[in-house]
Amino acid sequence: MGQTLADLPLRDDLRDQEPYGAPQLDVAVRLNVNENPYPPSEAVVADIARSVAEAARGLNRYPDREALELRRALATYLGHGLTANNVWAANGSNEVMLQILQAFGGPGRVAMSFEPTYSMYPEYARDTNTTWLTVPRSDDFTIDPERAVREIVHHKPSVVFLASPNNPTGTSLPLEVIERICAVAPGMVVVDEAYAEFRREGTPSALTLLPSYPRLVVTRTMSKAFALAGGRLGYLAADPAVVDALRIVRLPYHLSAVSQAVALAALRHADELLARVDELRARRDQTVSWLRGLGLEAIDSDANFVLFGRFEDRHAVWKGLLDRGVLIRETGPDGWLRVSIGTFEEMTAFRAALREVLAL
Amino acid sequence: MGQTLADLPLRDDLRDQEPYGAPQLDVAVRLNVNENPYPPSEAVVADIARSVAEAARGLNRYPDREALELRRALATYLGHGLTANNVWAANGSNEVMLQILQAFGGPGRVAMSFEPTYSMYPEYARDTNTTWLTVPRSDDFTIDPERAVREIVHHKPSVVFLASPNNPTGTSLPLEVIERICAVAPGMVVVDEAYAEFRREGTPSALTLLPSYPRLVVTRTMSKAFALAGGRLGYLAADPAVVDALRIVRLPYHLSAVSQAVALAALRHADELLARVDELRARRDQTVSWLRGLGLEAIDSDANFVLFGRFEDRHAVWKGLLDRGVLIRETGPDGWLRVSIGTFEEMTAFRAALREVLAL
Repeated sequence: MGQTLADLPLRDDLRDQEPYGAPQLDVAVRLNVNENPYPPSEAVVADIARSVAEAARGLNRYPDREALELRRALATYLGHGLTANNVWAANGSNEVMLQILQAFGGPGRVAMSFEPTYSMYPEYARDTNTTWLTVPRSDDFTIDPERAVREIVHHKPSVVFLASPNNPTGTSLPLEVIERICAVAPGMVVVDEAYAEFRREGTPSALTLLPSYPRLVVTRTMSKAFALAGGRLGYLAADPAVVDALRIVRLPYHLSAVSQAVALAALRHADELLARVDELRARRDQTVSWLRGLGLEAIDSDANFVLFGRFEDRHAVWKGLLDRGVLIRETGPDGWLRVSIGTFEEMTAFRAALREVLAL
Repeated sequence: MGQTLADLPLRDDLRDQEPYGAPQLDVAVRLNVNENPYPPSEAVVADIARSVAEAARGLNRYPDREALELRRALATYLGHGLTANNVWAANGSNEVMLQILQAFGGPGRVAMSFEPTYSMYPEYARDTNTTWLTVPRSDDFTIDPERAVREIVHHKPSVVFLASPNNPTGTSLPLEVIERICAVAPGMVVVDEAYAEFRREGTPSALTLLPSYPRLVVTRTMSKAFALAGGRLGYLAADPAVVDALRIVRLPYHLSAVSQAVALAALRHADELLARVDELRARRDQTVSWLRGLGLEAIDSDANFVLFGRFEDRHAVWKGLLDRGVLIRETGPDGWLRVSIGTFEEMTAFRAALREVLAL
């Protein structure tokens, strides 16, 4: 053995690429990957264990390929008159996104988004050989609808990704902007609502637009509001024909019987799990105010994180926080940093560390 | 709503395609998808539930992206001096295969296999925009090494898939044939050993060839011998550089903390789970003899299924069995049928039903 990656017949567009992912460091206060800081309660743990034990008795058999019971439960959770036929689920919303591009993107086709935005989108495009185009957001990280319409009409993307709330800025899109884009987009429009449950009062969900736009897709995840990042369960709501398209490209039995059982158990405890969301939203708003009180900029956020800055040397600030046991994320436009909203104690540690680093 | 798939901007090569998969019918005796008929014992179920409960307490956090503990355990199980650096795991071996083609296949590249073989391979190729080429096997379903070498030299495939034991024929490849192919293949050679644990005494594993061929990959699954089809855990052994390549294209956190915990629990009970394999191998050999005793052809099998025939109208035989509550698989070359090896009772039902259908 002893060969290196360079010796292998890797695809040319993968040469010198690094595996994606934030550093997984063993630090006391981890506010870097927008996890929910609250582990499931012992009641939820017990229900998960009981459900998995039941599923385990049939693990010698392949799982329900259609995950119908889970899709029904997700549709019920979403409301808006949706049924299982409108819902599709996969191993994390990133598998959902990959499947969307496998069905609707690919060689000779364009996927488009508005930067800064979620840094995985170009990886999904690369992995499906879809051409990736980005349009800059305005200075306040909103999307200028005139410009968006112009670029879409010009480039005719097969898939448009609209993160709302956007990562890493926390910015939600007004429904009017989504509607303007849907009206001209020749392909699929994917509104990535991974953080939807954290949006502020009065911010609507694109789910309300589904009946009007048959090529609109709204993606969600159980990683954030349901505190299930380790369970890997992403899903989408769309016209049933979109689900039919994804069923062609999905790997058969892509979602294990255990994943289905865990997600169903978590959904049974939605009330308890979502109660924590309100607490995190309040703490997020306090964090924005506190950062501004320090004289920093902080972007209004509808998510469970806040983008703040700007720093001449953001890496030094990031490193200073890490040296004090607080891990946040060096991401987004130059000069900005992103902090996930943790527990009261974690945010207290973050505040103290940031004051020290900035000598405030 | 009310649109159909034809109204959507689906990729052209997906038009009129059907989602892959055997019919999931509710039949008493299911011998159609090569499942292990033995559910996990209550001891295994309890260990799985306990392990998942432990993992569930941290499900708000993302899983170990590298799945290192699991890869270590899989390497130990495989032996042959392999370590975690040689092993990669994903949601079923079909995700492993997809990742191999994402890294080493793609537009302008060719993947090749030898038909009849596993019917998912062309789907992986299609989903990664890899050109799919097949070479026929000999009449006895072996691979003619001269012909294989000639075709590989001519078409220069980036990936060669060699199922051994092959599905749906049960045929293993002699190591000499694999070596002949490795010696001339310009790209990756993937030996799919999904059914390796079921091979007959004296049939070697391609794992022994890994030190000699740095572009050789051996894939395995826990679906069959470990009776974990519902758990979706596939893996591979290869040079560490191959694992590095797959880490570039894998979706981050592709393997849930729960999947990792379930697989680790099953591996702790390897002795118990694999004890059933010997029983199934013996029953497989008896099934081959019994079919031949009826005057039918049955292919020597190193897997947990048997290809038998030939029938003028195989669909009528398949349907006759189904009408008698026995579901087998209508797959492989025309005239042949495939039966998975079930419990003693299930095989007794199969035998009785087949005698009736054939009026023997």
